[in-house]
Amino acid sequence: MSRYDIAIIGTGPAGVSAALTAKNRNKSILIIGKKELSNKVLKSHKILNYPGLPDIAGEDLVAAMRKHLDSMGIEITEEQVTNVYAMGDYFALQCAKEMYEASTVIIASGVMQGKPLPGEEANLGRGVSYCATCDAALYKGKETTVLGYSRKEEEEASFLAELTDKVYYVPTYQEDPEFSPDNIEVIRGIPKEIRREDNKSVLVLDSREVVSDVVFVLRDSVSPGQLVPGLETEGAHIKTARDMSTNIPGLFAAGDITGTPYQDAKSVGEGNVAALTAVSYLTELAKKQK
Amino acid sequence: MSRYDIAIIGTGPAGVSAALTAKNRNKSILIIGKKELSNKVLKSHKILNYPGLPDIAGEDLVAAMRKHLDSMGIEITEEQVTNVYAMGDYFALQCAKEMYEASTVIIASGVMQGKPLPGEEANLGRGVSYCATCDAALYKGKETTVLGYSRKEEEEASFLAELTDKVYYVPTYQEDPEFSPDNIEVIRGIPKEIRREDNKSVLVLDSREVVSDVVFVLRDSVSPGQLVPGLETEGAHIKTARDMSTNIPGLFAAGDITGTPYQDAKSVGEGNVAALTAVSYLTELAKKQK
Repeated sequence: MSRYDIAIIGTGPAGVSAALTAKNRNKSILIIGKKELSNKVLKSHKILNYPGLPDIAGEDLVAAMRKHLDSMGIEITEEQVTNVYAMGDYFALQCAKEMYEASTVIIASGVMQGKPLPGEEANLGRGVSYCATCDAALYKGKETTVLGYSRKEEEEASFLAELTDKVYYVPTYQEDPEFSPDNIEVIRGIPKEIRREDNKSVLVLDSREVVSDVVFVLRDSVSPGQLVPGLETEGAHIKTARDMSTNIPGLFAAGDITGTPYQDAKSVGEGNVAALTAVSYLTELAKKQK
Repeated sequence: MSRYDIAIIGTGPAGVSAALTAKNRNKSILIIGKKELSNKVLKSHKILNYPGLPDIAGEDLVAAMRKHLDSMGIEITEEQVTNVYAMGDYFALQCAKEMYEASTVIIASGVMQGKPLPGEEANLGRGVSYCATCDAALYKGKETTVLGYSRKEEEEASFLAELTDKVYYVPTYQEDPEFSPDNIEVIRGIPKEIRREDNKSVLVLDSREVVSDVVFVLRDSVSPGQLVPGLETEGAHIKTARDMSTNIPGLFAAGDITGTPYQDAKSVGEGNVAALTAVSYLTELAKKQK
């Protein structure tokens, strides 16, 4: 397995900025995320304070950033990172499809919308999952529930419907989901809790309870402490120093996940700094390994 | 005198970003600097890693930022700030032409190129000056020396030549200065020290000594400790927290002056954060004053 210099998790403004600067410094990079970059930016009506691009629509800023990545030959790896392990002088990134290695990691995965539900983290791995691609095969012939925080999770639900007997789909958004498989049932309600009962997972809504073999909680991002064992966090945020370093040597963070303000300009600044601190770290690492 | 909510010192990427965000938050702002924004950006050949504007020439980035300011009706005040005084719940900004008041201040004046010369800071105010506009009148009929760090200082030297008998002009740059007044003498050499001797100021060069009544040291920016009495610094940089606050309540800093990396993306991020932290500070201030 080839080892990347810098793995960047996330394709929002922070991840894009980190990638551009790291590439500019001639580092080998892996950037993991979505080709549409950031759903949050994409849905911004107008951004007024991104310097140099006055009064720009979110989709135009995304297009400008994608063009910038293209112009520097940076390709996005569409994967889902489930865990990052610090292995000493490198990191192992366990993803849904493959495993990757990198000497440094920059987490720029955005901030999780809302807090985890009561019972969510406690039951993770035993009736609760964050990754349909990873765990679908475990529920062949069974019933599953998907708690979908954005429309792109409908695709995950459709995929689950192919492999499993039944999918209860609970959207947290307003729009009506569109599905072709007939074994998907859309249920409306506000999620309150996840319980395990008689070897079943119970998603408690304000309106009713949904009982199945597993609840897939599909958000744009997972909680950082969940992603990286041992990572120091403050609530939903990763604790970072001025140079974007974390408590784990070689691991950096940038963008919304480091805390407020949730602003594009702040994110690109932090991505830039994180990349350059990672570059310095790599220089030191190379000296040690001589 | 009307009191501004936020005074921003500097018109580089950090100052511009702070101004856009503060204006966006409906604050009254004073932004002090040059209409050509940042000399440093202007002279950048190509900037490769400013997200959204691939492979952009420095002058084009400056033009884009100026257009952005114009589109939001932000006007630059062309002034030179000589001192900032913390007055308790507001700040007094002493400038070359006028005095201003603001509830908060963001320093985004860039980093001073090089260290002060030996003897420079010790003799400030008695034979050494940072501001030709402020102090020219004191040297009517006398001899003056100008140590000019960029071509725009030639204008200052020409202005001094109108009021004083003689100007020795020592450029630190390669280009040949262009002057029409015939009482300006250009002297080449590397500055080593400034001494006071027999009521004269002696600028010591590697090639010779230049003796006159005053040495004007004209750089793009002055050292931050000099600008704001009591401000905590680390070398040429202002010490800032993650939210861009300094040791003085209500005073914030952003951009190169807070430390490396000296990058446009980092600067716009910090300007954005500084502005929003200033906005929060103003909210608290208003509560206290009720």
